[in-house]
Amino acid sequence: MSFAPVYLDWNATTPLDAQVREAMLPWLGAAEPVRFGNASSRHEYGRQARSAIDEARARVAAAVGAHATEVIFTSGGSEANNLFLKGAAACLKPGAVAISAIEHPCVREPARQLRRTGWSMTEIAVDAQGVIDAAAWAEALRARPALVSVMLANNETGVLQDIASLAVEARAAGAWFHSDAVQALGKVELDFRALGVNAMTLSAHKVGGPLGAGALVVDKRVELAPLIAGGGQERGLRSGTENVAAIVGFGVACEQASARRAAQAQRLAQLRDEIESGLAALGATVFSRAAQRLPNTIFFAVDNIDGETLVGKLDRAGFACASGSACSSAQPEPSHTLLAMGVDPLVARGAVRVSLGHGTTADEVGRFAGTLSRVVEELKTLASVAG
Amino acid sequence: MSFAPVYLDWNATTPLDAQVREAMLPWLGAAEPVRFGNASSRHEYGRQARSAIDEARARVAAAVGAHATEVIFTSGGSEANNLFLKGAAACLKPGAVAISAIEHPCVREPARQLRRTGWSMTEIAVDAQGVIDAAAWAEALRARPALVSVMLANNETGVLQDIASLAVEARAAGAWFHSDAVQALGKVELDFRALGVNAMTLSAHKVGGPLGAGALVVDKRVELAPLIAGGGQERGLRSGTENVAAIVGFGVACEQASARRAAQAQRLAQLRDEIESGLAALGATVFSRAAQRLPNTIFFAVDNIDGETLVGKLDRAGFACASGSACSSAQPEPSHTLLAMGVDPLVARGAVRVSLGHGTTADEVGRFAGTLSRVVEELKTLASVAG
Ligand SMILES: Cc1ncc(COP(=O)(O)O)c(C=O)c1O
Ligand SMILES: Cc1ncc(COP(=O)(O)O)c(C=O)c1O
Repeated sequence: MSFAPVYLDWNATTPLDAQVREAMLPWLGAAEPVRFGNASSRHEYGRQARSAIDEARARVAAAVGAHATEVIFTSGGSEANNLFLKGAAACLKPGAVAISAIEHPCVREPARQLRRTGWSMTEIAVDAQGVIDAAAWAEALRARPALVSVMLANNETGVLQDIASLAVEARAAGAWFHSDAVQALGKVELDFRALGVNAMTLSAHKVGGPLGAGALVVDKRVELAPLIAGGGQERGLRSGTENVAAIVGFGVACEQASARRAAQAQRLAQLRDEIESGLAALGATVFSRAAQRLPNTIFFAVDNIDGETLVGKLDRAGFACASGSACSSAQPEPSHTLLAMGVDPLVARGAVRVSLGHGTTADEVGRFAGTLSRVVEELKTLASVAG
Repeated sequence: MSFAPVYLDWNATTPLDAQVREAMLPWLGAAEPVRFGNASSRHEYGRQARSAIDEARARVAAAVGAHATEVIFTSGGSEANNLFLKGAAACLKPGAVAISAIEHPCVREPARQLRRTGWSMTEIAVDAQGVIDAAAWAEALRARPALVSVMLANNETGVLQDIASLAVEARAAGAWFHSDAVQALGKVELDFRALGVNAMTLSAHKVGGPLGAGALVVDKRVELAPLIAGGGQERGLRSGTENVAAIVGFGVACEQASARRAAQAQRLAQLRDEIESGLAALGATVFSRAAQRLPNTIFFAVDNIDGETLVGKLDRAGFACASGSACSSAQPEPSHTLLAMGVDPLVARGAVRVSLGHGTTADEVGRFAGTLSRVVEELKTLASVAG
């Protein structure tokens, strides 16, 4: 019997959906009819690649209420965020860029890089629940930023911002408004037109699609310089031979995620509540519990228990969860999101993220809740013996 | 019986190697043991992803005589070229950048973009064979460029430059020297250390690897700012969740390409010569025939026959070749490479590229040569009737 740990880290990445895989395999020569080709080539192979990309673009657009011509395929979410910030800034006179204080590093870092080219950068404060602070928001807009970026759903807490309202205000203040919707796709309703944003970022591998594909969905009025310049693919905004297999997979993943979204949201919220009841009994703090959140995400800490230690114990017991932010890398610093929420750094060191997905079963959650209690009690005992 | 056109466009992209596919399938959940995971995650899934990437990095490095720590994975060749030019420029005071006049658009366009940020950009002339002109080269170095980029093998003509000598001179003149080696990998010997370049670009999908992976191999003395900033992956030089399947495939593709390189080079050069004898009989011009070239590439034109038309006819007859440069996109303008070589634009409009690969058989080449003669004779007759 082969033993695979229970996967409770769906916000970090997801296993490939069966239907996505099926659509991709011909493009990897692993199923009939075998397909490959450079979509710019003017022969049969190239034409097939081109039409597969066109179809995928229509699927992604349909899933998020955009026009196909508004979808720029990239290699992933990080590239799309960098494309928006640097690409738009390159077409403007240096000015002000405002981002929320809880953005993913792939928004925060490119915004910081803009400082080198004469831009000023503001991080808009959030309240204790991780929601954009109204006064900080108003103040940020008074500086007339040319670019504003606020994520739809936070990858750690799952907190949702009221993007539709923020977009109206930012645009009224003269900004191009962008939202990183990577963690929202497939988990909450997502409609480009209804949100009224000028641009938004998607990533395939967070919704059962493959690594290697993402998109910037962008209003054509926004002038952008390409981050990757060259052959002129993607309306000149993203050069490089198109990754057909990944793009095809992304299209199918969007379709699947839309189709199952409502049912899964309800089911996962119940499983989440079950885990959170267990956490309450253990005296844990669940961050952002009072805010509007994604249905699948729990970010918590237990006093005096280190998050890394807890995650390590859970890993050895067969459950894969994340400590701090799994999307960002090497150095385990306390979560930037929690610090922005005013959480004590010592408490933040205890943070553990559990994120569920459509493959998560009630049985897995039951077993996890049991193991979590046992492990936390063990660690508490150790802590009290040591203390 | 299913009919697939004979693929003679290996410089545009290649079918996935069987061994590459086999290594990738577990990472797509299509073979046991099923694997997936974010390489930054600190649980079992993440550790497996990390070690697969480490192994692939070692393979790529070994194939090109570099240290594993010098390999920065990107989404492909275009991104790697942009990373080098923009990333290095961002760390320097604006100065001069020199590139050859026959670079791929994904070197030329980012070099042009640098002009907006205060850089001057020179394109170094080539001679009638497409080889860097010695006088133009010397003059370019006299301007003391901070960055120089010259491709190892041209994607259209297959012409090879004497990169080792150019690198010595460019570095002596105080430049960081980069070479786009995308078309060289797997076709000629490629050794980072022996070439003495500071950086070089590779792409997986040109050597039997997947779309979605490439690399900038870079000397650590070169300071680079990331093009895609964020989570800090790839030593902070390329953020974004790593595309594990594609990276794993790239590693195996490099290994395979190295292993078969010498034998294939000899075999393909013979097949190429066979096609070129046929072309000579048809009165065609083979570009760069007197230069050192890749063994697999033929770039030719027949007087008064339009390249697009010829490629279209060949396509319908079951042979997939490229007109002009298949790597760059939509508008069929005469080849930039040929214009730089001083070829008459009318002649350049006739250009057709045939590029062979390890899957090309003698039988395919024989059939192609026959069809090519027939089609060319037909088009000549039409032209003379029309004329
Ligand atoms: C909110 C958010 N934005 C962007 C990203 C980056 O996406 P990608 O991994 O596709 O580059 C992630 C995850 O890594 C994320 O959680
Ligand atoms: C010489 C050369 N450099 C760079 C590239 C771009 O590589 P990629 O398609 O991986 O972006 C190509 C082909 O497209 C090429 O032929």
